Amino acid sequence: MRLRKVKNAEEILLNSPYFIENPQELKGHWQEILKDEKEIHLEIGCGKGQFLIEMAKTHPDIFFIGMEYQKSVLVRAIHKANLEDLPNLKFICFNAESVDSLFSKEIDVLYLNFSDPWPKRRHAKRRLTDSHFLEIYDSIFKKKQEIIQKTDNPILFESSLENLSKHGFTLEKISFDLENTDIPNIKTEYEEKFINLGYSIYYVKAIKK
Amino acid sequence: MRLRKVKNAEEILLNSPYFIENPQELKGHWQEILKDEKEIHLEIGCGKGQFLIEMAKTHPDIFFIGMEYQKSVLVRAIHKANLEDLPNLKFICFNAESVDSLFSKEIDVLYLNFSDPWPKRRHAKRRLTDSHFLEIYDSIFKKKQEIIQKTDNPILFESSLENLSKHGFTLEKISFDLENTDIPNIKTEYEEKFINLGYSIYYVKAIKK
Repeated sequence: MRLRKVKNAEEILLNSPYFIENPQELKGHWQEILKDEKEIHLEIGCGKGQFLIEMAKTHPDIFFIGMEYQKSVLVRAIHKANLEDLPNLKFICFNAESVDSLFSKEIDVLYLNFSDPWPKRRHAKRRLTDSHFLEIYDSIFKKKQEIIQKTDNPILFESSLENLSKHGFTLEKISFDLENTDIPNIKTEYEEKFINLGYSIYYVKAIKK
Repeated sequence: MRLRKVKNAEEILLNSPYFIENPQELKGHWQEILKDEKEIHLEIGCGKGQFLIEMAKTHPDIFFIGMEYQKSVLVRAIHKANLEDLPNLKFICFNAESVDSLFSKEIDVLYLNFSDPWPKRRHAKRRLTDSHFLEIYDSIFKKKQEIIQKTDNPILFESSLENLSKHGFTLEKISFDLENTDIPNIKTEYEEKFINLGYSIYYVKAIKK
Protein backbone atom coordinates (compact mmCIF):
# COMPACT_ATOMS: atom_id res chain seq x y z
CA MET A 1 0.00 0.00 0.00
CA ARG A 2 1.61 3.28 -1.07
CA LEU A 3 0.53 6.41 0.74
CA ARG A 4 1.79 9.95 0.91
CA LYS A 5 4.32 10.26 3.66
CA VAL A 6 2.69 11.51 6.83
CA LYS A 7 4.61 14.26 8.54
CA ASN A 8 5.53 13.58 12.13
CA ALA A 9 4.33 9.98 11.87
CA GLU A 10 6.70 8.99 14.68
CA GLU A 11 5.34 11.70 16.93
CA ILE A 12 1.70 10.84 16.20
CA LEU A 13 2.33 7.18 17.05
CA LEU A 14 4.21 7.93 20.26
CA ASN A 15 1.51 10.33 21.46
CA SER A 16 -1.36 7.88 20.97
CA PRO A 17 -2.66 5.72 23.84
CA TYR A 18 -3.24 3.02 21.23
CA PHE A 19 0.42 2.62 20.30
CA ILE A 20 2.83 0.29 22.04
CA GLU A 21 6.39 1.31 21.18
CA ASN A 22 8.34 -1.68 22.47
CA PRO A 23 6.01 -4.68 22.24
CA GLN A 24 8.89 -7.16 22.57
CA GLU A 25 9.12 -6.15 26.24
CA LEU A 26 5.64 -7.61 26.75
CA LYS A 27 6.54 -11.09 25.43
CA GLY A 28 5.09 -13.59 27.88
CA HIS A 29 3.37 -10.80 29.82
CA TRP A 30 0.56 -9.62 27.56
CA GLN A 31 -2.04 -11.09 29.89
CA GLU A 32 -0.93 -8.54 32.52
CA ILE A 33 -2.11 -5.53 30.45
CA LEU A 34 -5.53 -7.09 29.79
CA LYS A 35 -8.50 -6.17 31.99
CA ASP A 36 -11.60 -8.33 31.52
CA GLU A 37 -10.72 -9.61 28.07
CA LYS A 38 -10.47 -13.38 27.75
CA GLU A 39 -8.71 -13.77 24.42
CA ILE A 40 -6.02 -11.99 22.40
CA HIS A 41 -6.56 -11.68 18.65
CA LEU A 42 -3.77 -10.41 16.40
CA GLU A 43 -4.02 -8.96 12.91
CA ILE A 44 -0.77 -9.00 10.93
CA GLY A 45 -0.88 -6.27 8.29
CA CYS A 46 -3.71 -4.27 9.83
CA GLY A 47 -3.39 -1.47 7.26
CA LYS A 48 -5.60 1.53 7.97
CA GLY A 49 -7.25 -0.25 10.90
CA GLN A 50 -10.96 -0.24 10.03
CA PHE A 51 -11.38 -4.01 10.50
CA LEU A 52 -9.72 -4.10 13.92
CA ILE A 53 -11.40 -0.94 15.25
CA GLU A 54 -14.84 -2.33 14.32
CA MET A 55 -13.92 -5.74 15.77
CA ALA A 56 -12.84 -4.08 19.05
CA LYS A 57 -16.18 -2.21 19.23
CA THR A 58 -18.17 -5.39 18.48
CA HIS A 59 -16.23 -7.68 20.86
CA PRO A 60 -15.32 -5.82 24.08
CA ASP A 61 -14.45 -9.18 25.68
CA ILE A 62 -11.54 -9.71 23.24
CA PHE A 63 -8.22 -7.84 23.25
CA PHE A 64 -7.12 -6.88 19.73
CA ILE A 65 -3.60 -6.11 18.53
CA GLY A 66 -3.01 -4.61 15.11
CA MET A 67 0.46 -5.09 13.65
CA GLU A 68 1.66 -3.08 10.66
CA TYR A 69 5.18 -2.72 9.34
CA GLN A 70 4.70 0.60 7.55
CA LYS A 71 4.55 3.59 9.87
CA SER A 72 2.96 5.75 7.17
CA VAL A 73 0.04 3.27 7.05
CA LEU A 74 -0.18 2.60 10.76
CA VAL A 75 -0.52 6.31 11.49
CA ARG A 76 -3.85 6.27 9.56
CA ALA A 77 -5.13 3.49 11.82
CA ILE A 78 -3.97 5.43 14.88
CA HIS A 79 -5.77 8.57 13.66
CA LYS A 80 -9.02 6.59 13.36
CA ALA A 81 -8.56 4.88 16.73
CA ASN A 82 -7.83 8.21 18.45
CA LEU A 83 -11.48 9.17 17.74
CA GLU A 84 -12.70 6.15 19.76
CA ASP A 85 -12.48 4.97 23.34
CA LEU A 86 -11.43 1.34 23.03
CA PRO A 87 -9.49 -0.07 25.97
CA ASN A 88 -9.27 -3.47 24.23
CA LEU A 89 -7.24 -2.29 21.22
CA LYS A 90 -3.52 -1.65 20.67
CA PHE A 91 -1.32 -1.16 17.62
CA ILE A 92 2.32 -2.11 17.09
CA CYS A 93 4.85 -1.42 14.34
CA PHE A 94 6.72 -4.63 13.62
CA ASN A 95 7.89 -7.07 10.97
CA ALA A 96 5.92 -10.30 10.53
CA GLU A 97 9.18 -12.27 10.26
CA SER A 98 9.88 -11.44 13.92
CA VAL A 99 6.39 -11.86 15.39
CA ASP A 100 7.68 -14.76 17.49
CA SER A 101 9.85 -12.29 19.41
CA LEU A 102 6.65 -10.57 20.65
CA PHE A 103 4.40 -13.40 21.82
CA SER A 104 4.91 -16.68 23.60
CA LYS A 105 1.82 -18.94 23.52
CA GLU A 106 -0.42 -15.88 23.96
CA ILE A 107 -2.46 -15.50 20.78
CA ASP A 108 -5.89 -17.10 20.26
CA VAL A 109 -6.72 -15.99 16.73
CA LEU A 110 -4.58 -14.58 13.90
CA TYR A 111 -6.18 -12.54 11.09
CA LEU A 112 -4.52 -12.14 7.70
CA ASN A 113 -6.67 -9.74 5.71
CA PHE A 114 -5.76 -8.94 2.11
CA SER A 115 -2.07 -9.55 2.66
CA ASP A 116 0.24 -8.78 -0.25
CA PRO A 117 -0.41 -11.76 -2.58
CA TRP A 118 3.11 -11.89 -4.10
CA PRO A 119 1.59 -13.70 -7.10
CA LYS A 120 4.88 -14.55 -8.84
CA ARG A 121 6.13 -18.00 -7.97
CA ARG A 122 9.65 -16.74 -7.17
CA HIS A 123 8.16 -14.46 -4.50
CA ALA A 124 5.98 -17.15 -2.89
CA LYS A 125 8.22 -17.23 0.21
CA ARG A 126 7.07 -13.70 1.05
CA ARG A 127 3.39 -14.64 1.34
CA LEU A 128 2.22 -14.50 4.96
CA THR A 129 0.93 -18.09 4.70
CA ASP A 130 4.19 -19.49 3.34
CA SER A 131 5.37 -22.54 5.29
CA HIS A 132 8.20 -20.66 6.99
CA PHE A 133 5.71 -18.08 8.31
CA LEU A 134 3.40 -20.86 9.59
CA GLU A 135 6.42 -22.22 11.48
CA ILE A 136 7.12 -18.78 12.94
CA TYR A 137 3.47 -18.46 14.05
CA ASP A 138 3.60 -21.87 15.81
CA SER A 139 5.08 -20.41 19.01
CA ILE A 140 2.84 -17.33 19.30
CA PHE A 141 -0.41 -19.32 19.70
CA LYS A 142 -1.88 -20.81 22.82
CA LYS A 143 -2.44 -24.56 22.48
CA LYS A 144 -5.10 -24.23 19.76
CA GLN A 145 -4.15 -22.30 16.63
CA GLU A 146 -6.74 -20.40 14.60
CA ILE A 147 -5.93 -18.46 11.43
CA ILE A 148 -8.62 -16.54 9.54
CA GLN A 149 -7.68 -15.26 6.11
CA LYS A 150 -9.51 -13.09 3.60
CA THR A 151 -8.19 -12.20 0.15
CA ASP A 152 -9.38 -11.39 -3.34
CA ASN A 153 -6.35 -13.12 -4.89
CA PRO A 154 -6.85 -16.72 -6.09
CA ILE A 155 -3.10 -17.45 -6.33
CA LEU A 156 -2.51 -16.45 -2.71
CA PHE A 157 -5.63 -18.36 -1.64
CA GLU A 158 -4.67 -21.59 -3.44
CA SER A 159 -1.24 -21.57 -1.84
CA SER A 160 -2.67 -20.65 1.58
CA LEU A 161 -5.03 -23.63 1.54
CA GLU A 162 -2.21 -25.97 0.45
CA ASN A 163 0.24 -24.67 3.05
CA LEU A 164 -2.25 -24.60 5.92
CA SER A 165 -3.30 -28.15 5.06
CA LYS A 166 0.30 -29.41 4.79
CA HIS A 167 1.08 -27.71 8.10
CA GLY A 168 -1.60 -29.74 9.92
CA PHE A 169 -4.43 -27.21 9.94
CA THR A 170 -8.01 -28.38 9.37
CA LEU A 171 -9.83 -26.08 6.97
CA GLU A 172 -13.02 -25.66 9.01
CA LYS A 173 -14.75 -23.14 6.81
CA ILE A 174 -13.99 -22.10 3.24
CA SER A 175 -15.84 -19.66 1.01
CA PHE A 176 -15.06 -18.38 -2.48
CA ASP A 177 -17.68 -15.67 -2.11
CA LEU A 178 -17.74 -14.45 1.49
CA GLU A 179 -20.24 -11.67 0.77
CA ASN A 180 -22.89 -14.26 -0.12
CA THR A 181 -22.56 -16.44 2.99
CA ASP A 182 -23.93 -16.15 6.52
CA ILE A 183 -20.40 -15.88 7.99
CA PRO A 184 -20.29 -12.74 10.21
CA ASN A 185 -17.91 -10.33 8.51
CA ILE A 186 -16.45 -6.93 9.31
CA LYS A 187 -14.96 -5.45 6.16
CA THR A 188 -11.57 -3.83 5.64
CA GLU A 189 -11.27 -0.59 3.64
CA TYR A 190 -9.77 -2.56 0.74
CA GLU A 191 -12.52 -5.19 0.91
CA GLU A 192 -15.32 -2.62 0.64
CA LYS A 193 -13.70 -1.14 -2.42
CA PHE A 194 -13.23 -4.49 -4.13
CA ILE A 195 -16.74 -5.75 -3.36
CA ASN A 196 -18.10 -2.54 -4.91
CA LEU A 197 -16.05 -3.35 -8.02
CA GLY A 198 -17.77 -6.74 -8.19
CA TYR A 199 -14.92 -8.93 -6.93
CA SER A 200 -15.54 -12.03 -4.83
CA ILE A 201 -13.74 -12.44 -1.53
CA TYR A 202 -12.07 -15.72 -0.55
CA TYR A 203 -12.28 -16.75 3.11
CA VAL A 204 -10.80 -19.55 5.18
CA LYS A 205 -10.94 -20.36 8.88
CA ALA A 206 -8.19 -22.87 9.69
CA ILE A 207 -7.76 -24.63 13.03
CA LYS A 208 -4.85 -26.66 14.41
CA LYS A 209 -5.32 -28.41 17.74
CA MET B 1 -26.84 -36.46 -17.19
CA ARG B 2 -30.01 -37.12 -19.23
CA LEU B 3 -29.62 -39.07 -22.43
CA ARG B 4 -31.99 -40.75 -24.81
CA LYS B 5 -32.56 -44.31 -23.72
CA VAL B 6 -30.25 -46.68 -25.58
CA LYS B 7 -31.98 -49.73 -26.95
CA ASN B 8 -30.52 -53.04 -25.82
CA ALA B 9 -28.20 -51.30 -23.33
CA GLU B 10 -28.07 -54.46 -21.21
CA GLU B 11 -27.10 -56.56 -24.22
CA ILE B 12 -24.41 -54.09 -25.34
CA LEU B 13 -22.83 -54.09 -21.88
CA LEU B 14 -22.91 -57.87 -21.52
CA ASN B 15 -21.34 -58.40 -24.95
CA SER B 16 -18.42 -56.03 -24.34
CA PRO B 17 -15.04 -57.34 -23.11
CA TYR B 18 -14.78 -54.07 -21.14
CA PHE B 19 -17.78 -54.78 -18.93
CA ILE B 20 -17.66 -56.68 -15.66
CA GLU B 21 -21.18 -57.77 -14.71
CA ASN B 22 -20.64 -58.88 -11.12
CA PRO B 23 -17.74 -56.83 -9.75
CA GLN B 24 -18.61 -57.69 -6.13
CA GLU B 25 -17.34 -61.23 -6.83
CA LEU B 26 -13.86 -59.74 -7.37
CA LYS B 27 -13.68 -58.03 -3.97
CA GLY B 28 -10.26 -58.81 -2.51
CA HIS B 29 -9.21 -60.52 -5.77
CA TRP B 30 -8.81 -57.65 -8.27
CA GLN B 31 -5.06 -58.14 -8.31
CA GLU B 32 -5.65 -61.56 -9.90
CA ILE B 33 -7.14 -60.13 -13.11
CA LEU B 34 -4.28 -57.63 -13.57
CA LYS B 35 -1.36 -58.46 -15.84
CA ASP B 36 1.64 -56.13 -15.57
CA GLU B 37 -0.24 -53.19 -14.07
CA LYS B 38 1.08 -51.97 -10.73
CA GLU B 39 -1.79 -49.79 -9.52
CA ILE B 40 -5.59 -49.73 -9.71
CA HIS B 41 -7.27 -46.36 -10.30
CA LEU B 42 -11.04 -46.00 -9.97
CA GLU B 43 -13.29 -43.31 -11.40
CA ILE B 44 -16.68 -43.00 -9.72
CA GLY B 45 -19.16 -41.48 -12.15
CA CYS B 46 -17.13 -42.11 -15.31
CA GLY B 47 -19.92 -40.83 -17.56
CA LYS B 48 -19.23 -41.29 -21.25
CA GLY B 49 -15.72 -42.58 -20.54
CA GLN B 50 -13.44 -40.21 -22.47
CA PHE B 51 -11.24 -39.41 -19.46
CA LEU B 52 -10.67 -43.03 -18.48
CA ILE B 53 -10.13 -44.30 -22.04
CA GLU B 54 -7.47 -41.65 -22.63
CA MET B 55 -5.90 -42.33 -19.22
CA ALA B 56 -5.75 -46.06 -20.05
CA LYS B 57 -4.01 -45.28 -23.35
CA THR B 58 -1.53 -42.92 -21.67
CA HIS B 59 -0.73 -45.15 -18.68
CA PRO B 60 -0.56 -48.81 -19.77
CA ASP B 61 1.08 -49.64 -16.42
CA ILE B 62 -2.08 -48.69 -14.49
CA PHE B 63 -5.34 -50.65 -14.37
CA PHE B 64 -8.39 -48.37 -14.68
CA ILE B 65 -11.93 -49.08 -13.55
CA GLY B 66 -14.79 -46.83 -14.56
CA MET B 67 -17.89 -46.95 -12.39
CA GLU B 68 -21.18 -45.49 -13.53
CA TYR B 69 -24.62 -46.01 -12.05
CA GLN B 70 -26.64 -45.17 -15.16
CA LYS B 71 -26.62 -47.91 -17.76
CA SER B 72 -27.78 -45.49 -20.48
CA VAL B 73 -24.62 -43.43 -19.85
CA LEU B 74 -22.24 -46.34 -19.34
CA VAL B 75 -23.24 -47.82 -22.67
CA ARG B 76 -21.76 -44.72 -24.38
CA ALA B 77 -18.44 -45.33 -22.64
CA ILE B 78 -18.56 -48.98 -23.65
CA HIS B 79 -19.24 -48.03 -27.29
CA LYS B 80 -16.13 -45.81 -27.27
CA ALA B 81 -13.98 -48.42 -25.53
CA ASN B 82 -15.08 -51.13 -27.99
CA LEU B 83 -13.18 -49.21 -30.70
CA GLU B 84 -9.92 -49.57 -28.73
CA ASP B 85 -7.73 -52.41 -27.56
CA LEU B 86 -7.08 -51.59 -23.90
CA PRO B 87 -6.38 -54.58 -21.66
CA ASN B 88 -5.97 -52.24 -18.66
CA LEU B 89 -9.54 -50.87 -18.66
CA LYS B 90 -12.83 -52.18 -17.30
CA PHE B 91 -16.24 -50.67 -16.61
CA ILE B 92 -18.78 -51.55 -13.95
CA CYS B 93 -22.36 -50.48 -13.27
CA PHE B 94 -22.70 -49.80 -9.55
CA ASN B 95 -23.89 -47.35 -6.91
CA ALA B 96 -21.24 -45.21 -5.16
CA GLU B 97 -22.92 -45.86 -1.79
CA SER B 98 -21.92 -49.53 -2.10
CA VAL B 99 -18.40 -49.15 -3.51
CA ASP B 100 -17.01 -50.71 -0.32
CA SER B 101 -18.68 -53.99 -1.31
CA LEU B 102 -16.46 -54.13 -4.41
CA PHE B 103 -12.96 -53.36 -3.13
CA SER B 104 -10.98 -54.22 -0.03
CA LYS B 105 -7.77 -52.19 0.31
CA GLU B 106 -7.22 -52.43 -3.46
CA ILE B 107 -7.53 -48.91 -4.88
CA ASP B 108 -4.55 -46.54 -5.28
CA VAL B 109 -6.27 -43.45 -6.71
CA LEU B 110 -9.91 -42.34 -6.86
CA TYR B 111 -11.05 -39.80 -9.48
CA LEU B 112 -14.20 -37.73 -9.00
CA ASN B 113 -14.69 -35.76 -12.20
CA PHE B 114 -17.56 -33.30 -12.47
CA SER B 115 -19.74 -35.20 -10.04
CA ASP B 116 -23.28 -33.93 -9.54
CA PRO B 117 -22.70 -30.82 -7.34
CA TRP B 118 -26.02 -31.03 -5.45
CA PRO B 119 -25.68 -27.29 -4.72
CA LYS B 120 -28.64 -27.01 -2.33
CA ARG B 121 -27.61 -27.35 1.29
CA ARG B 122 -30.33 -29.91 2.04
CA HIS B 123 -28.84 -32.18 -0.66
CA ALA B 124 -25.22 -31.86 0.56
CA LYS B 125 -25.25 -35.46 1.83
CA ARG B 126 -25.50 -36.65 -1.78
CA ARG B 127 -22.22 -35.03 -2.86
CA LEU B 128 -19.55 -37.67 -3.53
CA THR B 129 -17.18 -35.90 -1.13
CA ASP B 130 -19.68 -35.76 1.73
CA SER B 131 -18.20 -37.11 4.98
CA HIS B 132 -20.24 -40.32 4.85
CA PHE B 133 -18.84 -41.07 1.38
CA LEU B 134 -15.27 -40.38 2.58
CA GLU B 135 -15.93 -42.96 5.34
CA ILE B 136 -17.19 -45.47 2.76
CA TYR B 137 -14.07 -44.91 0.63
CA ASP B 138 -11.78 -45.55 3.64
CA SER B 139 -11.86 -49.33 3.19
CA ILE B 140 -11.40 -49.44 -0.60
CA PHE B 141 -7.94 -47.82 -0.55
CA LYS B 142 -4.60 -49.45 0.00
CA LYS B 143 -2.72 -47.87 2.94
CA LYS B 144 -2.31 -44.47 1.24
CA GLN B 145 -5.46 -42.73 0.03
CA GLU B 146 -5.42 -40.40 -2.96
CA ILE B 147 -8.49 -38.57 -4.25
CA ILE B 148 -8.31 -36.31 -7.31
CA GLN B 149 -11.34 -34.13 -7.97
CA LYS B 150 -12.23 -31.79 -10.82
CA THR B 151 -15.36 -29.66 -10.93
CA ASP B 152 -16.65 -26.37 -12.30
CA ASN B 153 -18.92 -25.89 -9.28
CA PRO B 154 -17.60 -23.65 -6.46
CA ILE B 155 -20.16 -24.86 -3.90
CA LEU B 156 -19.17 -28.50 -4.42
CA PHE B 157 -15.48 -27.52 -4.37
CA GLU B 158 -15.71 -25.51 -1.12
CA SER B 159 -17.44 -28.39 0.65
CA SER B 160 -15.02 -30.95 -0.84
CA LEU B 161 -12.00 -29.05 0.51
CA GLU B 162 -13.62 -28.70 3.96
CA ASN B 163 -14.66 -32.37 4.13
CA LEU B 164 -11.36 -33.76 2.83
CA SER B 165 -9.49 -31.58 5.33
CA LYS B 166 -11.74 -32.57 8.25
CA HIS B 167 -11.35 -36.22 7.23
CA GLY B 168 -7.54 -36.05 7.63
CA PHE B 169 -6.55 -35.52 4.00
CA THR B 170 -3.70 -33.16 3.16
CA LEU B 171 -4.58 -30.94 0.21
CA GLU B 172 -1.36 -31.43 -1.76
CA LYS B 173 -2.33 -29.47 -4.86
CA ILE B 174 -5.18 -27.03 -5.41
CA SER B 175 -6.04 -25.00 -8.48
CA PHE B 176 -8.97 -22.72 -9.21
CA ASP B 177 -8.03 -22.63 -12.90
CA LEU B 178 -6.66 -26.01 -13.92
CA GLU B 179 -6.41 -25.07 -17.60
CA ASN B 180 -3.76 -22.46 -16.76
CA THR B 181 -1.46 -24.66 -14.69
CA ASP B 182 1.25 -27.17 -15.60
CA ILE B 183 -0.71 -30.04 -13.98
CA PRO B 184 -1.00 -32.84 -16.59
CA ASN B 185 -4.70 -33.10 -17.45
CA ILE B 186 -6.85 -35.34 -19.60
CA LYS B 187 -10.22 -33.72 -20.13
CA THR B 188 -13.69 -35.20 -19.79
CA GLU B 189 -16.38 -34.52 -22.43
CA TYR B 190 -18.11 -32.14 -20.01
CA GLU B 191 -14.85 -30.35 -19.17
CA GLU B 192 -14.05 -29.63 -22.85
CA LYS B 193 -17.49 -28.13 -23.29
CA PHE B 194 -17.21 -25.93 -20.19
CA ILE B 195 -13.69 -24.72 -20.94
CA ASN B 196 -14.90 -23.69 -24.40
CA LEU B 197 -17.66 -21.71 -22.70
CA GLY B 198 -15.00 -19.86 -20.68
CA TYR B 199 -15.49 -21.56 -17.31
CA SER B 200 -12.60 -22.24 -14.94
CA ILE B 201 -12.03 -25.73 -13.63
CA TYR B 202 -11.32 -26.39 -9.93
CA TYR B 203 -8.84 -29.15 -9.10
CA VAL B 204 -7.64 -30.79 -5.91
CA LYS B 205 -5.27 -33.67 -5.22
CA ALA B 206 -5.80 -34.87 -1.66
CA ILE B 207 -3.64 -37.43 0.13
CA LYS B 208 -4.19 -39.32 3.37
CA LYS B 209 -1.38 -41.51 4.70
